[in-house]
Amino acid sequence: MEQLDRLDRLDRQMAFVTEVGQLKGVDRQTMLAGLGRSENSAEHSWHLAMMVLALAEHAPPGTDLGRVLTMVLIHDLVEIDAGDLFLYVDEEQQRRQDAAERSAADRIFAILPADQAAALRSMWDEFTERRTLDARFARAIDRLQPMLENFAVGGGTWQRHGITADQVLEKVRLIEDGSPALGELARKLVTAAIADGILAP
Amino acid sequence: MEQLDRLDRLDRQMAFVTEVGQLKGVDRQTMLAGLGRSENSAEHSWHLAMMVLALAEHAPPGTDLGRVLTMVLIHDLVEIDAGDLFLYVDEEQQRRQDAAERSAADRIFAILPADQAAALRSMWDEFTERRTLDARFARAIDRLQPMLENFAVGGGTWQRHGITADQVLEKVRLIEDGSPALGELARKLVTAAIADGILAP
Repeated sequence: MEQLDRLDRLDRQMAFVTEVGQLKGVDRQTMLAGLGRSENSAEHSWHLAMMVLALAEHAPPGTDLGRVLTMVLIHDLVEIDAGDLFLYVDEEQQRRQDAAERSAADRIFAILPADQAAALRSMWDEFTERRTLDARFARAIDRLQPMLENFAVGGGTWQRHGITADQVLEKVRLIEDGSPALGELARKLVTAAIADGILAP
Repeated sequence: MEQLDRLDRLDRQMAFVTEVGQLKGVDRQTMLAGLGRSENSAEHSWHLAMMVLALAEHAPPGTDLGRVLTMVLIHDLVEIDAGDLFLYVDEEQQRRQDAAERSAADRIFAILPADQAAALRSMWDEFTERRTLDARFARAIDRLQPMLENFAVGGGTWQRHGITADQVLEKVRLIEDGSPALGELARKLVTAAIADGILAP
């Protein structure tokens, strides 16, 4: 019985591993400097994890970096069903996307054995609701990374969608809320982007 | 002075974050099921991290999963300079690749502030030399993932390069060494691949 249970757990875990591989096929709006193609959500998630490792000291005291890593690694899995939504959309679009993402979370995490499914779903909810120190730092990293990519390609989605500095600064608040140091960095990036003429004042 | 030091650290960390983004442009031999393109090393590294989360309970007692996560996230950074080498090559090719990877590690980790550079370089050495429990589990995951991809696409690099089951089983030893349960799974995968005619006996 215990042997059977162990096999069943491994079966479910492997089914999850196979399923999540699909995130490599979810394209984001962000264009990648030097590669001439859009970024996919799997490599985006990896880049966030690298940022957590490199920028760890800018997390508020008491942040649990292992939990932050887990959050950034799993945060976009729901896009396998719901797709990636551009950051600047109206409230109605955002509401529809939130509902689609919750349904996706219901389906995807449940592929795992129940205890693991509950643990990862709870981390995903925490990230989504920005409920804790860990979630707020993870969200700050997730918000900062596309700004870096836009800056590197000289405009990117800012230019393609006619986004202004005010709109970007509105989003920068969430970075400040997760990490004052990274918020300051993001503000400097906006100033530099305006000066370079790649972001409208 | 302290303020200057803090800014200098952040500058170096951001330079590292930008540099590692290049891993998204390093293509591997592995073809991705359903996507009709080869896998890049950034999304591969993300998939390994997801496997660590999903398969954590199959690590030997005493494994530090946070360290394993860090190792799989950084293990391929050297490919930014050295490129990805196919698993089945002769000793001379492997020796040249090892030297190229060490030079790459010297350059890339040194972009970070010295304390962080030393810490990540030491983790990379540990992974490369399979020196610890953590490194052996990380290496097992790294070895298992391409087998899953090959199985999913019905042959992949096994067929393209005429690899036989004996050659694959030779590599499976390293998986068993990192996790007996995952080693057993890999052996079953080889048996199934032979039965399906996608791997030569």
